[in-house]
Amino acid sequence: MFTNKLTGLLKIEHPIIQAPMAGGITTSKLVAEVSNAGGLGMIGAGYMTPAQIRDQIKEIKQLTKKPFGINLFVPNDFSYTENEVNKANQLLQPIRNHLQIHHDHTIDLPTSDQIIKTFNEQIKVVIEERIPVCSFTFGIPSEEVIADLRRNDVILIGTATTVEEAIEVEKSGMDMVVVQGSEAGGHRGNFISESHNSLIGLMSLIPQIVDHVSIPVIAAGGIMDGRGLTASLCLGAMGVQMGTAFLTCIESGAQQKYKEAILHASEDQTVLTRTFSGKWARGIKNKFIVEMEKYEDVLPEFPVQNTLTQPIRKASSSQQNADYLSLWSGQSPRLAKTQSVRVLFNTILTEAKNIQNNL
Amino acid sequence: MFTNKLTGLLKIEHPIIQAPMAGGITTSKLVAEVSNAGGLGMIGAGYMTPAQIRDQIKEIKQLTKKPFGINLFVPNDFSYTENEVNKANQLLQPIRNHLQIHHDHTIDLPTSDQIIKTFNEQIKVVIEERIPVCSFTFGIPSEEVIADLRRNDVILIGTATTVEEAIEVEKSGMDMVVVQGSEAGGHRGNFISESHNSLIGLMSLIPQIVDHVSIPVIAAGGIMDGRGLTASLCLGAMGVQMGTAFLTCIESGAQQKYKEAILHASEDQTVLTRTFSGKWARGIKNKFIVEMEKYEDVLPEFPVQNTLTQPIRKASSSQQNADYLSLWSGQSPRLAKTQSVRVLFNTILTEAKNIQNNL
Repeated sequence: MFTNKLTGLLKIEHPIIQAPMAGGITTSKLVAEVSNAGGLGMIGAGYMTPAQIRDQIKEIKQLTKKPFGINLFVPNDFSYTENEVNKANQLLQPIRNHLQIHHDHTIDLPTSDQIIKTFNEQIKVVIEERIPVCSFTFGIPSEEVIADLRRNDVILIGTATTVEEAIEVEKSGMDMVVVQGSEAGGHRGNFISESHNSLIGLMSLIPQIVDHVSIPVIAAGGIMDGRGLTASLCLGAMGVQMGTAFLTCIESGAQQKYKEAILHASEDQTVLTRTFSGKWARGIKNKFIVEMEKYEDVLPEFPVQNTLTQPIRKASSSQQNADYLSLWSGQSPRLAKTQSVRVLFNTILTEAKNIQNNL
Repeated sequence: MFTNKLTGLLKIEHPIIQAPMAGGITTSKLVAEVSNAGGLGMIGAGYMTPAQIRDQIKEIKQLTKKPFGINLFVPNDFSYTENEVNKANQLLQPIRNHLQIHHDHTIDLPTSDQIIKTFNEQIKVVIEERIPVCSFTFGIPSEEVIADLRRNDVILIGTATTVEEAIEVEKSGMDMVVVQGSEAGGHRGNFISESHNSLIGLMSLIPQIVDHVSIPVIAAGGIMDGRGLTASLCLGAMGVQMGTAFLTCIESGAQQKYKEAILHASEDQTVLTRTFSGKWARGIKNKFIVEMEKYEDVLPEFPVQNTLTQPIRKASSSQQNADYLSLWSGQSPRLAKTQSVRVLFNTILTEAKNIQNNL
């Protein structure tokens, strides 16, 4: 249903892409079930090692014969001072104590070289494992990487938060673009525009981008059901990418406490924060954000802050405590349900068909 | 086209409402042309005296036999200290000097009593002139006012920015609710939720509100064409309210420089500011906002700051200078055009029909 150029290129039945949520949410079962249901399952591989990626790909291939994709983070330049890191550590220490995290050693901070090396190895796995679709967040990879992937028939998807960014994605030679509205949960994908200038609602953003690019546009942000799917198509998108809707599915790997936080949240409880990772992201306001938000301006940038808070998020998760987890969520948590991927797909498609008939 | 319960109640042909923009934009010609085209023209009467309202109503009745409506601001409690006002005056003085505004007297500040008295007189005019539709921003009027208007068969429309606010609008006995997304230009209509918690994109906001109220929902924010209209209907709204799209129309009373600022803006150039009025509103960032934004937290509240900046906005307007005007705009300025209301309507309806056929 709703087949078009996008479904043709991706070789999928329905223009529904499962957002590549990083941090263990996109289990092999989730990815495979989405692809088996006729959508495109995506591995959120931003934080994964090349070996972990290879293992998961093999696992997914056991569960589905349908195409699935992967998302990688484009490495960004970053810098930090010892002072900045000491200050952040000092601010985080009371929370580490509270969670009884004991360090005998200092946390190893990543270097740009390491991150670029890992990214190049991730790309190598994508090519070797013949993954048909690769999407990127936080920018556009180098010409060489794009050429390499294209030579290997990988369909490339960029992420944009403004018209200018979408134009750059098209110019780079990518095949389609995910348009991230201000409604979207998780990290902002802006890479040219400033985070706070690029918070454009999808009702505004999709038509303005569609008027400026010719590659297929995929709408992302707050889309949870057949209403969001059909609305996105009316606005000129050829498909949707849904995160929060899949996050609370039975097959998702999100912590139970995290799922519950979304299932009990209202639309006005998410905030933009850089306290967890150093990059702006939308999530449900919890104790960690409340305690750290006054220091938002002085925290180190991504991925440094992300590395510093990792033990906290890990301990919070294993202690079944949602207070110090990053509870990324879009602005439609009231529409989230506990259900299987299959039921979610059936509901979306039935609803979309009804809307189409009654418009 | 797209007739439903909303078009039935409002006795209009198409579910398109012209947003009641205050400050001289909604000329009699604009309001009448919208109603003549089959939509609902609205007088933005928030800042008008009862006598001005009566005059404009008479003028519009000469131009159309179709129904039209009016919008009023619900009076809010406010307070200020002499200190606060002195500080604001001190900050505004360099701009007043620059615009050569010379005061022999201090600016008279409004009192709550005056504002309530004016509001009650405005309501009286609405009833006496038998205006069929009255919408409200900044809250819900008293039970007495609502009962009085209902007794006189006035259809009442509230404004909401969150699910909670929409539920309160329905409970108050109003007939429909304008749902203002974060994309919307001009003043935020929040009255329970905090301004910054209630910036929800329409893709998220409409379905979540539709699931919680049974009165018709009108989508507002960034809607400019047939794409926005059909998308809003898919999301569950029964109609749309469009501001910026009508603001640049030939019939609108907006200053030429203001229209040009919108016609040349991109989607990432609007900001939320309370520098002009003391209430948060979305507009194109200009010199005034840049100069004043660092004092955002200390400026007096609405309507005090609005009164203090009024001579600046007036002088800026008469000097054809967009630097110190409030350039309210939604997040879709790239879709704005110089055209007649009639052409805008024809384009929207043709486009909507095509989308409907191709979905």
